[in-house]
Amino acid sequence: MAVRIGIFGYGNLGRGVEAAVKASSDLTLEAVFTRRDPSTVKIATDVKVYKDTDLVDFEGKLDVLVLCGGSATDLPVQTPALASRFNLVDSFDTHARIPEQFKKVDAAAKSGSRVAVISAGWDPGLFSVARAYSESVLPQGKSYTFWGRGVSQGHSDAIRRIKGVLDARQYTIPRDEALDEVRTGKCPDLSVRQMHARECFVVAEEGADLKRIETEIKSMPNYFADYDTTVHFISQAELKRDHAGLPHGGFVLRSGKTGLESENNELIEFRLKLDSNPQFTGCVLAACARACARFAKEGRTGCLTMLDIPPAYLSPLDRESLIAHLL
Amino acid sequence: MAVRIGIFGYGNLGRGVEAAVKASSDLTLEAVFTRRDPSTVKIATDVKVYKDTDLVDFEGKLDVLVLCGGSATDLPVQTPALASRFNLVDSFDTHARIPEQFKKVDAAAKSGSRVAVISAGWDPGLFSVARAYSESVLPQGKSYTFWGRGVSQGHSDAIRRIKGVLDARQYTIPRDEALDEVRTGKCPDLSVRQMHARECFVVAEEGADLKRIETEIKSMPNYFADYDTTVHFISQAELKRDHAGLPHGGFVLRSGKTGLESENNELIEFRLKLDSNPQFTGCVLAACARACARFAKEGRTGCLTMLDIPPAYLSPLDRESLIAHLL
Repeated sequence: MAVRIGIFGYGNLGRGVEAAVKASSDLTLEAVFTRRDPSTVKIATDVKVYKDTDLVDFEGKLDVLVLCGGSATDLPVQTPALASRFNLVDSFDTHARIPEQFKKVDAAAKSGSRVAVISAGWDPGLFSVARAYSESVLPQGKSYTFWGRGVSQGHSDAIRRIKGVLDARQYTIPRDEALDEVRTGKCPDLSVRQMHARECFVVAEEGADLKRIETEIKSMPNYFADYDTTVHFISQAELKRDHAGLPHGGFVLRSGKTGLESENNELIEFRLKLDSNPQFTGCVLAACARACARFAKEGRTGCLTMLDIPPAYLSPLDRESLIAHLL
Repeated sequence: MAVRIGIFGYGNLGRGVEAAVKASSDLTLEAVFTRRDPSTVKIATDVKVYKDTDLVDFEGKLDVLVLCGGSATDLPVQTPALASRFNLVDSFDTHARIPEQFKKVDAAAKSGSRVAVISAGWDPGLFSVARAYSESVLPQGKSYTFWGRGVSQGHSDAIRRIKGVLDARQYTIPRDEALDEVRTGKCPDLSVRQMHARECFVVAEEGADLKRIETEIKSMPNYFADYDTTVHFISQAELKRDHAGLPHGGFVLRSGKTGLESENNELIEFRLKLDSNPQFTGCVLAACARACARFAKEGRTGCLTMLDIPPAYLSPLDRESLIAHLL
């Protein structure tokens, strides 16, 4: 029997989970919940949309609830509040606050004998998994994470707050020279400037002082001052035409030594190149929902992350097929 | 308390496990077993070497036994025979025979309430894990495995069997054009010739017919006939000087589609670039020994593969450190 999925929050990520569930024959979408007026929300598949407050009627009717809200204000409240009543998966990605979120969700899930998988996605998520494998296998070494080429929402927002800016899109770009140097096995110490560059596409108000806007962007502390930043002024039409997508990705590398004299260089590299960050993240959440349902069936309770999930649990294949086809 | 490791078989792989255990403070090497006369075996660390038949005295004195024999004749016999008495890890890599090996080892391990992790290493092993993650996350798509640049023992042996050949080393080389085409997201169908090339370094007897040897290599069915093969004749001294190492590695790629209209290309790439195949494989076995000990402590029994191991179990870090540093 297919795993019954509920989607809580229907933005870009919710649509990603919807498409991913549709692509998996062992998962079925049961309901979508929104805080908007459900009659105004048009979804892509033939499934009913409910008001978020209707979720109370769905206890026992969903195998896994996938939370698709944001990490800033939604998930810190929603995940702990719902974890005692639903098996659930979220994509909480505020790295510094994950330990605190984990504790709250763990207590809630255990109190209701439910399973929660938090911080699923690609970073945290698949990138965390890549770091765990590579550091476990190569304890002597150095790890590197590069992001991009991809759109950073936070940096784009920071540009939009500048006076005279109508809209903006910021790309984080990993530097090829730095990647290649890591791949040599030299274990270089790299500054933030050496690892990433930033490219900004900015729509300015008519008559705005472009020179001042560019200077304000490039000198912005934390966001841009420590990086080589390029600024392009373009029209709103160009922004819409050329920069509507949400591509992303990145690299996790571990450069390590083996041998009694540390005489060998070994490199482990994991890379993602994504046309659509939210669609791909939705796919990871769907696979984690499958694992969550399996843990729940086994009677596991409490909070987990992707580091606690055996790879086989993410797969729709049974053990014999996995051994025959993937091992 | 450190996990007490025994190494069974002391060749290249055994030495790799020895170095890996030494690099991990939570693992300790307890004993090495060999079928040779122990007095003739000089090992790198300060640990006693025993005759393989002495293993019977070590029941209860080792937490995990790491089997370092070969897949052709050693492991098909040793792993099922020992799995009822020791928690163990092996690197059985004859893909076609893994299902059969799994069944035998599972029955033996369960009969003695032990845990066995089989087929650990990088392929099968980390590459299997990469395939499982990427196919679970991107169900619509195509997977590719490339091997190399690395030494293939089987192909080197095949050349050595040719009349007039004294020694040989064969490198399997992934083709950059093929890798780049996969990375575009076009999901190409690739022939064996398009994916890999083969390069051979051959030491011939004095006065041997080099033309005939080259033709025999290039036309050898299964091994070389379907590939673009280059043959270099060199001296024994050159072979020893330039080709003594056992480098290897490769790439696992998954090119997949996401979105309701399959409108996005997503790429997952996992790469290994290894100076020493046996030293790196030894590191993977050591990490799996850690996981094996943990499963045993929890009371798990039976046969497992790396697809059944949560990433966290491979790590010496506790959950709080994992969440804080790797997630």
